[in-house]
Amino acid sequence: MPSPSLSVRALDALPEVRPGDDLAALVLAANGGRPFLADDCVVVSHKVVSKAEGRLVELAAVEVSPRAADLAVVLDKEPALVQVVLDDTAEIVRARRGVLICRTHHGFVCANAGVDRSNVAEGWAVTLPVDPDASARALRAALPGRPAVVVADSFGRAWRHGQAEVAIGCAGLVAVADERGAVDRHGRELQATVIAVADHVASAADLARRKASGQPAVVVGGLGELVTPDDGPGAAVLVRAASEDLFGAA
Amino acid sequence: MPSPSLSVRALDALPEVRPGDDLAALVLAANGGRPFLADDCVVVSHKVVSKAEGRLVELAAVEVSPRAADLAVVLDKEPALVQVVLDDTAEIVRARRGVLICRTHHGFVCANAGVDRSNVAEGWAVTLPVDPDASARALRAALPGRPAVVVADSFGRAWRHGQAEVAIGCAGLVAVADERGAVDRHGRELQATVIAVADHVASAADLARRKASGQPAVVVGGLGELVTPDDGPGAAVLVRAASEDLFGAA
Repeated sequence: MPSPSLSVRALDALPEVRPGDDLAALVLAANGGRPFLADDCVVVSHKVVSKAEGRLVELAAVEVSPRAADLAVVLDKEPALVQVVLDDTAEIVRARRGVLICRTHHGFVCANAGVDRSNVAEGWAVTLPVDPDASARALRAALPGRPAVVVADSFGRAWRHGQAEVAIGCAGLVAVADERGAVDRHGRELQATVIAVADHVASAADLARRKASGQPAVVVGGLGELVTPDDGPGAAVLVRAASEDLFGAA
Repeated sequence: MPSPSLSVRALDALPEVRPGDDLAALVLAANGGRPFLADDCVVVSHKVVSKAEGRLVELAAVEVSPRAADLAVVLDKEPALVQVVLDDTAEIVRARRGVLICRTHHGFVCANAGVDRSNVAEGWAVTLPVDPDASARALRAALPGRPAVVVADSFGRAWRHGQAEVAIGCAGLVAVADERGAVDRHGRELQATVIAVADHVASAADLARRKASGQPAVVVGGLGELVTPDDGPGAAVLVRAASEDLFGAA
């Protein structure tokens, strides 16, 4: 069997993305106008997707609820920012000084419901796309060559330092490879057999880009059969429902 | 700035690794005898490291404690296997039917303390290396070209389906990169500024290999300044101490 080989290549920096911008056109230009290959996966930071989709909030214009105001005191955070976070939150997982871990409406468990103020104009915050899988499908459909697409974000982990890169949306990628039933060389069934492929693709992409330098798009090439003609169910299959939480107190 | 570009390439399959085998020689042979480049990172599945280091346990020879016997009933698992898991466990995080999540002596939180029966002979189990960072350093020192080394394993996540690939040991790699050059000591923000680079390298490698086919070694090339002359502190820096657990009930 030939050794599988992949490439990971950051595209050129994108210009500052504004609401209504044609993200596919910007990504294509960042690839020098060349179409992508059928087993490429284009990984984009969620932030450029959110910006193109107008998911920006001006903090000065936010009406702060009493709940957000109270929580802001506990957290030592800006009340308007806490309100924006609560607007995207289905359930607060943890709240203490400086730390607000939320389960979002999508089911993602992450700090501040994914709301972020970095790489955005002073006084504004950027929120997660409403439906990142739909965002990925739309971008895929618009990109020449129709590569797979991953929309990526950085999430903290319970027991490990450092942010992990995860796929919050994807299209045309086997998001989770289920190798259960496959056997090893001894005929024993494999254990660690459900692989978070889309998260691995997001992680690989992050190695090639530098967040601060405006390179939010990366091409992971050579994924072979992990790229599918159908868009598939997206990154939603990576979300563990609250009722299935393996590590919680339930 | 030129676009950073990486390659990810699985090495040839290794023969079955046995206690006392020279793992560096096997990895070098799997690379066709060619030395590695100075900014390569060789990623090896922990299992071949464990096997070479003799971290194999014959279940029939295990003396089962009353505690392990009781727990085996609750979990519906084999008593000898539960004993092997407990021997490597500092703290049980969760135990219920079929699921045993442990904090290992290293501080890793994972299923069954990393003890695994796949890719090992019937009646045996393989445990994690005693000191995976030391394993990585030794492998690095013995590999021509002195590439960085990551020892990888697959861990489940609290809130996401699918196994993530993580670095349980590393040498010569910036395991955690602070993108802003300054650690936030006030804990005010949980944004994406501290990147779990070693875990990303492990994840990228996993895309190129097939666990069932005996390809436990992968080269991630082009990592540039993420590979360091010094071995550095290893993957231990990725371990969040129990007292820092961000998501726990404390």
